[in-house]
Amino acid sequence: MSGDNQIRIGLLSCTNKVRKLSRAINLSPNATISAIATTSSIEEAKSFAKSNNFPPNTKIHSSYESLLEDPDVDAVYFPIPTRLHVEWTTLAATKGKHILLDKPVALNVSEFDQIVEACEVNGVQFMDGTQWMHNPRTVKIKEFVNDLESFGQIKSVYSCFSFAASDDFLKHDIRVKPGLDGLGALGDAGWYTIQAILLVNNFKLPKTVTALSGSVLNDAGIVLSCGALFDWEDGVSATIYCSFLANLTMEITAIGTKGSLRVHDFVIPYMETEAVFTTSGGGCVSEHKVMTVLPQETCMVMEFARLVGEIKNRGAKPDGFWMRFSRNTQLLVDAVKESIDNNLEPVYLSGR
Amino acid sequence: MSGDNQIRIGLLSCTNKVRKLSRAINLSPNATISAIATTSSIEEAKSFAKSNNFPPNTKIHSSYESLLEDPDVDAVYFPIPTRLHVEWTTLAATKGKHILLDKPVALNVSEFDQIVEACEVNGVQFMDGTQWMHNPRTVKIKEFVNDLESFGQIKSVYSCFSFAASDDFLKHDIRVKPGLDGLGALGDAGWYTIQAILLVNNFKLPKTVTALSGSVLNDAGIVLSCGALFDWEDGVSATIYCSFLANLTMEITAIGTKGSLRVHDFVIPYMETEAVFTTSGGGCVSEHKVMTVLPQETCMVMEFARLVGEIKNRGAKPDGFWMRFSRNTQLLVDAVKESIDNNLEPVYLSGR
Repeated sequence: MSGDNQIRIGLLSCTNKVRKLSRAINLSPNATISAIATTSSIEEAKSFAKSNNFPPNTKIHSSYESLLEDPDVDAVYFPIPTRLHVEWTTLAATKGKHILLDKPVALNVSEFDQIVEACEVNGVQFMDGTQWMHNPRTVKIKEFVNDLESFGQIKSVYSCFSFAASDDFLKHDIRVKPGLDGLGALGDAGWYTIQAILLVNNFKLPKTVTALSGSVLNDAGIVLSCGALFDWEDGVSATIYCSFLANLTMEITAIGTKGSLRVHDFVIPYMETEAVFTTSGGGCVSEHKVMTVLPQETCMVMEFARLVGEIKNRGAKPDGFWMRFSRNTQLLVDAVKESIDNNLEPVYLSGR
Repeated sequence: MSGDNQIRIGLLSCTNKVRKLSRAINLSPNATISAIATTSSIEEAKSFAKSNNFPPNTKIHSSYESLLEDPDVDAVYFPIPTRLHVEWTTLAATKGKHILLDKPVALNVSEFDQIVEACEVNGVQFMDGTQWMHNPRTVKIKEFVNDLESFGQIKSVYSCFSFAASDDFLKHDIRVKPGLDGLGALGDAGWYTIQAILLVNNFKLPKTVTALSGSVLNDAGIVLSCGALFDWEDGVSATIYCSFLANLTMEITAIGTKGSLRVHDFVIPYMETEAVFTTSGGGCVSEHKVMTVLPQETCMVMEFARLVGEIKNRGAKPDGFWMRFSRNTQLLVDAVKESIDNNLEPVYLSGR
């Protein structure tokens, strides 16, 4: 693909997250890095760009505003604290920049709705930066749980994502600070588990959400660990567990009337080049290997750039799927938090 | 081992359960079948004994009472409906017979306490017939979750056991009849999941038990499917899911501060001669294979016969571990049912 057809992505800040995403962009045939903005040293940004193999003509901006004005930037990746999402993404949207935004997408769904509106008004593509959704394995998982012959009807799902954060993380990381990310383990690890239970329920929202007792909060009221129950009609239910305080575990167990699914590394596959899931049903247990030629973060960038390319080069409308999925995930994150704050009362989602 | 040292077991009824257990006894070097009681045809019982390779001198009794009077019976296996447990096991205990009793051990813990008292007064050994607890893999699992270096402190556990019962089962099986087993999927599949969460919590009782919304009950009020939450101190929690309405699934996922455990076939291992579990921690995922020279039901019979032998041949006292474990399991089954019946209110276990 010629460089002219590549979607030009601008990056904010010289952080480790940006380092990882820049590798994914460099591996994507339909995207390229065109600019980076730093609010600290220009020299440092130049060195960062060089050591991470940014294209030689990558522009260095000394402010986020300047990058958002850059006509050589089609889309922007926002690895900034959640509290700043509305301000910067809505500004980007008004500048016609497409948006790749880290999860949790906002501090709450009404904040996110401001982002939704800005994207819709300005016709820009939105996607949240959750990579596992773009792994080819996830497509296969979705096929399996939607197969009435092999899986039948969904009955129960369990998903957990935990990791044992260091003492330093638990004191200083933005994910445990009310003024920064604000939603703690729920907005971070919990985000993935909620996506997982939505995926296996064919993206249908549950009727009720109830936090489970046993949540652990820090002194500032940030969730470090919690569980929740989600109910759909007909006795279909899901439980999640997310934690900064327990060993790395990334599970999906989905049980249908005819089949079951198990995934042990759904967030970050153990191997970059292949990913495994197990199904059982009809007396058989099968292990499925899905090859991933490119890492899942590259698959995400490619899909984002493809959608942006459809708009930029073919006059297509933005694809609303990813925005709706982010909104529903945020809605459930909010509902879990609301239930925790309201003494574990169930939250009814009807009309939200 | 000479026949004189074998524990002589009496069996009640010619059912499929008895067929399975008779194989386990035949494989146990320290146990033998000495009698069977039938309430129907003596000829049928003779044929049943022959086709299942009972010892040629096995006595055939035409009533349960008669078998319980037999001086050549040391211990009795009770595969009878739960509602009949108190009556027959307490009678057996007064006759000095040791007791191997199917789960759920009683309709509720106060009924079970009558069995406990009869066993204690008469000095007989009690064990419930849950086989997986005696699989050599279970010993290894217990070692792993108690290893502070590899597993750390327990944080969260999930266990499920479901199977898709046939229409015939859902209409006619004793497990869906209030006059027979009474506790439905909770007393059957749920029993195992509760044992699993107790096992990984080193058999410590939780503080509270809360049924989760989404239970499915039949017209007679019998649980066909339910979930529950269990809370210990310090944010340690467990969820279970048990069902007659979903595909066969038998999971334990236990998460500690340093390690995690996964078992996919904890109730009935996929293979009779080896059983697998997976651990992760410190960046490594390890699959552990545990060889089982004898099937787990034989391991159970051997352990039961060993304990009975200690009493019979060496004047030991009954080992109370299995009775306490059955009582605690029953206590939690009761608490889940109580919470379901009380609009999902938490049940506090203190003092029970």
